[in-house]
Amino acid sequence: MLRWNNDYNHGAHPEVLKALSEINDQHFGGYGFDEWCDAAKSEIKSHFGAQADRADIHFLAGGTQANLTVITAALRPIESVVCVEAGHINCHEAGSIEATGHKMLALKSEDGKVHAEALDAEAARFYFDETQEHLTQPKMVYISSPTEWGTLYSLAELKALREVCDKYGMYLFLDGARMGYGLTAPSGDVTLEDIAELADVFYIGGTKCGTMFGEAVVIMNDQLKKSFRFYMKQRGAVLAKGWLMGIQFYTLFKGGKNALYYTECRRAAEYAMELKAAFEAKGVKFAVDSPTNQQFVILHKDQLAALEKKHIVEYMDWVDEEHRIVRFCTAWSSRREDLDVLLADIAAM
Amino acid sequence: MLRWNNDYNHGAHPEVLKALSEINDQHFGGYGFDEWCDAAKSEIKSHFGAQADRADIHFLAGGTQANLTVITAALRPIESVVCVEAGHINCHEAGSIEATGHKMLALKSEDGKVHAEALDAEAARFYFDETQEHLTQPKMVYISSPTEWGTLYSLAELKALREVCDKYGMYLFLDGARMGYGLTAPSGDVTLEDIAELADVFYIGGTKCGTMFGEAVVIMNDQLKKSFRFYMKQRGAVLAKGWLMGIQFYTLFKGGKNALYYTECRRAAEYAMELKAAFEAKGVKFAVDSPTNQQFVILHKDQLAALEKKHIVEYMDWVDEEHRIVRFCTAWSSRREDLDVLLADIAAM
Amino acid sequence: MLRWNNDYNHGAHPEVLKALSEINDQHFGGYGFDEWCDAAKSEIKSHFGAQADRADIHFLAGGTQANLTVITAALRPIESVVCVEAGHINCHEAGSIEATGHKMLALKSEDGKVHAEALDAEAARFYFDETQEHLTQPKMVYISSPTEWGTLYSLAELKALREVCDKYGMYLFLDGARMGYGLTAPSGDVTLEDIAELADVFYIGGTKCGTMFGEAVVIMNDQLKKSFRFYMKQRGAVLAKGWLMGIQFYTLFKGGKNALYYTECRRAAEYAMELKAAFEAKGVKFAVDSPTNQQFVILHKDQLAALEKKHIVEYMDWVDEEHRIVRFCTAWSSRREDLDVLLADIAAM
Amino acid sequence: MLRWNNDYNHGAHPEVLKALSEINDQHFGGYGFDEWCDAAKSEIKSHFGAQADRADIHFLAGGTQANLTVITAALRPIESVVCVEAGHINCHEAGSIEATGHKMLALKSEDGKVHAEALDAEAARFYFDETQEHLTQPKMVYISSPTEWGTLYSLAELKALREVCDKYGMYLFLDGARMGYGLTAPSGDVTLEDIAELADVFYIGGTKCGTMFGEAVVIMNDQLKKSFRFYMKQRGAVLAKGWLMGIQFYTLFKGGKNALYYTECRRAAEYAMELKAAFEAKGVKFAVDSPTNQQFVILHKDQLAALEKKHIVEYMDWVDEEHRIVRFCTAWSSRREDLDVLLADIAAM
Repeated sequence: MLRWNNDYNHGAHPEVLKALSEINDQHFGGYGFDEWCDAAKSEIKSHFGAQADRADIHFLAGGTQANLTVITAALRPIESVVCVEAGHINCHEAGSIEATGHKMLALKSEDGKVHAEALDAEAARFYFDETQEHLTQPKMVYISSPTEWGTLYSLAELKALREVCDKYGMYLFLDGARMGYGLTAPSGDVTLEDIAELADVFYIGGTKCGTMFGEAVVIMNDQLKKSFRFYMKQRGAVLAKGWLMGIQFYTLFKGGKNALYYTECRRAAEYAMELKAAFEAKGVKFAVDSPTNQQFVILHKDQLAALEKKHIVEYMDWVDEEHRIVRFCTAWSSRREDLDVLLADIAAM
Repeated sequence: MLRWNNDYNHGAHPEVLKALSEINDQHFGGYGFDEWCDAAKSEIKSHFGAQADRADIHFLAGGTQANLTVITAALRPIESVVCVEAGHINCHEAGSIEATGHKMLALKSEDGKVHAEALDAEAARFYFDETQEHLTQPKMVYISSPTEWGTLYSLAELKALREVCDKYGMYLFLDGARMGYGLTAPSGDVTLEDIAELADVFYIGGTKCGTMFGEAVVIMNDQLKKSFRFYMKQRGAVLAKGWLMGIQFYTLFKGGKNALYYTECRRAAEYAMELKAAFEAKGVKFAVDSPTNQQFVILHKDQLAALEKKHIVEYMDWVDEEHRIVRFCTAWSSRREDLDVLLADIAAM
Repeated sequence: MLRWNNDYNHGAHPEVLKALSEINDQHFGGYGFDEWCDAAKSEIKSHFGAQADRADIHFLAGGTQANLTVITAALRPIESVVCVEAGHINCHEAGSIEATGHKMLALKSEDGKVHAEALDAEAARFYFDETQEHLTQPKMVYISSPTEWGTLYSLAELKALREVCDKYGMYLFLDGARMGYGLTAPSGDVTLEDIAELADVFYIGGTKCGTMFGEAVVIMNDQLKKSFRFYMKQRGAVLAKGWLMGIQFYTLFKGGKNALYYTECRRAAEYAMELKAAFEAKGVKFAVDSPTNQQFVILHKDQLAALEKKHIVEYMDWVDEEHRIVRFCTAWSSRREDLDVLLADIAAM
Repeated sequence: MLRWNNDYNHGAHPEVLKALSEINDQHFGGYGFDEWCDAAKSEIKSHFGAQADRADIHFLAGGTQANLTVITAALRPIESVVCVEAGHINCHEAGSIEATGHKMLALKSEDGKVHAEALDAEAARFYFDETQEHLTQPKMVYISSPTEWGTLYSLAELKALREVCDKYGMYLFLDGARMGYGLTAPSGDVTLEDIAELADVFYIGGTKCGTMFGEAVVIMNDQLKKSFRFYMKQRGAVLAKGWLMGIQFYTLFKGGKNALYYTECRRAAEYAMELKAAFEAKGVKFAVDSPTNQQFVILHKDQLAALEKKHIVEYMDWVDEEHRIVRFCTAWSSRREDLDVLLADIAAM
């Protein structure tokens, strides 16, 4: 069987595993105070252009951990987070944000993105005067790019969000679990430097983009930097052997424009466009128009049954009794020969 | 420089790394639903004897995460945790337990252990009648074995704690971050089966005993099993690629009595006894009499300076202006040739 | 100026004040352990018919306090509360429930009520299988009757909710801040005994129905009774001089069917129907059809300006640039002569 | 029976009740936005001398509520509170502070006070360098004056604490539940103006000093003022009918140096000194030397039995099998004739 259900079903990129193996016999200082974490931070910052010096970087093991640690560090108890209803923190993390004491204000959104006008309207509802003490204060906007639905913020959209955030004094937090597939999407126009300029805090996902595990939280806003490691410790997010993440991120990000992070994600993004075209050629409809590595197609149950003979996919909602939304993901680990099998099977379904 | 400051300064045991590498190209289901997690659970349970069938096992990335997830899953908001003042959760986890809303009741203890009489007296203070509503209800006892000071609970001591827990309806939670060095300590008399019989919940540490990372939480009490994975998810403690921990624990625990977990920890425990003897031979005093891999010696600053030419140690408190408590750890990764250098340097200091 | 903006703008009913004054020179035990709290509980239970013996009653100072204490006592960290979007706990208590760590699942609702079918559909989404660990577990349904919009649950509606709760093992929590105006609404068909039979926990509001302050939390489900006073204490909800609430509730509830609680609320409910008829006679539209003491009318700004010469009202949303929803409340403290002024002014506006 | 067990066993001072009664028929704005709250704030500030303009005042119903609201508003999740082991928040509020997520660092103290040297030593332990991320950051010092043991801070002691707080950037929070009995203690040397100058935040207790209920939280430090009412709302600490507290505090504090708050508390403080002298005359020992309204005497069980024929007291710990510490409180409600009975009974015991 070939697995297309998600983008985290393989271990590490071979180069990453090799690097980990090569230093396995050496000893290091604990908790992220080691030379590989330092080197990884340098390499990551080298992608931030003019923003490099402003960045504080921390490595955490997973995405939910990154989200809840950033949010608990950033907000006071009366402050809330704006996100979309489909936001990962709103519906896929078991109430993790509320467990830190914060309310979420979930916006409706057709395409999984927070749009500037909707954000402005929501914020205005809370900030229209000084005596709204029965409400929370929306202080952070949480977005994912690519989103849960594979859609991607354009540079213009991010700038518009930044303006609304500045208007109300809100933080912009970008969850980049799949950032690599967005930065390299053929139709994308956003760079890491743009994100470093526009977001107050974001993270660069490793788990879905070439590492065994690990997410790099990048803090740009000075107000959010203070004592961040205390928050990590308190939430169980300081790994004893921090260098394990340092060496992995170093390996992914060294090499400037030719870094593995780009080359491996770009191939997957391109594979996804081939996949999309194959479904389009069959007249298949999409639940959403995604320019990145996740494709949400609406299959008739017979089409699905045909594909499932060789392919593992992810089930989403039923559209009607005969049609179901199904997710196909490509990833850094996707192989050309497997894709060709899938493309042929789509053509034949 | 040779590192003796802690027991988590190397990557993974070579066999563990080899196993990880061999499956790197394969694909697996996410979140711990995979064949290696299943195999690891089977192997671990095989060490529990008659208790095997009662055990639920979950793999978490780190110790603080394991502690806070177990405690938040087990306790109601008005329930508190009894531990010793030196307990890891009380003074080395940045208020992580209070951050979940629970008070800790910290007992004084010379040797880092919770003693049954002290526990009974503390519990009696809270449970003497039904109207103590201005107090919390101590519902869980948290112990580490080996403790933060390297001391080890005997079977009789664990049984005595169990009796007090039964008397008051309290849970016994054993933090086994260094359990391997306790189970194999020459003077120890406790087995994994004993622990599985006596504790309500415990964890078997991987990070300090041969894995890159990962702790195996074992739940014996049915009341604590319900929905545990929801709590893990909520606290960011579900790793996307769960098989990474499955294969590591499988490798450590397969082989029954000859499992790597025992052989590698036993060697370190024996090295520690050699180290202890070397210090004793020099008339050096110990801060506490430890039968396990951590040795806390009281060195004159000149002795310390002499050893620090080649050896990295962990500083603890000053005893007076000239004497300091210093920790030396052996570990699965300690090498005979390095120990010999250290022993010679101690003899010559 | 005459105040119709809310139902908590006067001190206590004269009989309540008189009772408070008469015992002012006497001394009592603290924290609710006194004869007046006991007497009040007896009188309240006398209204529960066959359910009387099952009830545990506690007096708390305010509604937000009652809501957050009940919810934190009832739920585990991974459990959530279902309510309507307009639910008081969802949008008027500053994130108080999330501050206890719990997610709210807010249903859309035209009339401010949770409807059984919508509840069933929502619960089904979460409970369809055992592996939904990325979600919370909806364990409590929070309703207000009368609702924030003055609407009222019928007995049939409450029974239907009870059935859905039983189906999924959920608690039914009824916020009765304005319960008196519902029990005495001309069109209502629910008694206190019905509520005691159908809800797991509810509270009878005093603040809006004749006391200076105080809400009586009534726990019917044994599972929710355990250690409730500890939760009250922990949340700052144990008043030192508990008898102050005891004597007030005793005064309101003594006298069986002729208790002040009924006679005073009934008059207000009837006044509200006169008010409603007056607006209807002028062709004024209502934002919602309310059978209780709160009336939400849609006034043209000129009408509003006319009424505001003598009357204080509560502003709600604008409907368009010229029309606004405005709340008029009657209460136990409303006077016949004031109502007549208002009725005349409505007729003349 | 005469009640000396505590200082909150009577309703309100007759003048306070009279004031409440006189405005019972009037209507007011809700949530503390009313003329009596404004007037009360003015009168209270008039006692602050040069500090008056800096003060923000809020009225809350009870002490535990005041403590937990102030602390949750002031601290970030990684910050902790220093107090004494006997501190009310540490052992009499059911884990209320931990329930807001904050650790308490409890100092040993013979006399129930935090002493400047002990505070400095404790703070130094946490702030000695920037990498103590496994610890919390002690950011607030919580003291009560008078303390739980009736002892009283001198002006010199408060100034010394202020200096240590300034040294480490910590807030000084003074719980003044019994402040009236301290300000008027014959041996005291601290004024309300001193407290307003030295504390960052404090509260003036009403419940034990003449009101039915209510505590006045006074915020002096600008950093702690922001959005405080949101925190009150979130914790259920905004009373709907705020004027009930406004009128009570207004009545207690009007009149400058001759305010009821002083005259009524002074009489009780003087009564306590008579009581103390009576016990001393009998050779009775004290658990602690208290200059305020609480006296902790060590009675033989026969003496206790003799007194308990007419007097209700509060039991504290047993000293040995025959002697017990017992608390006698005087209060604003204590009557001369009752005191004379007690003095005679002590003389005769």
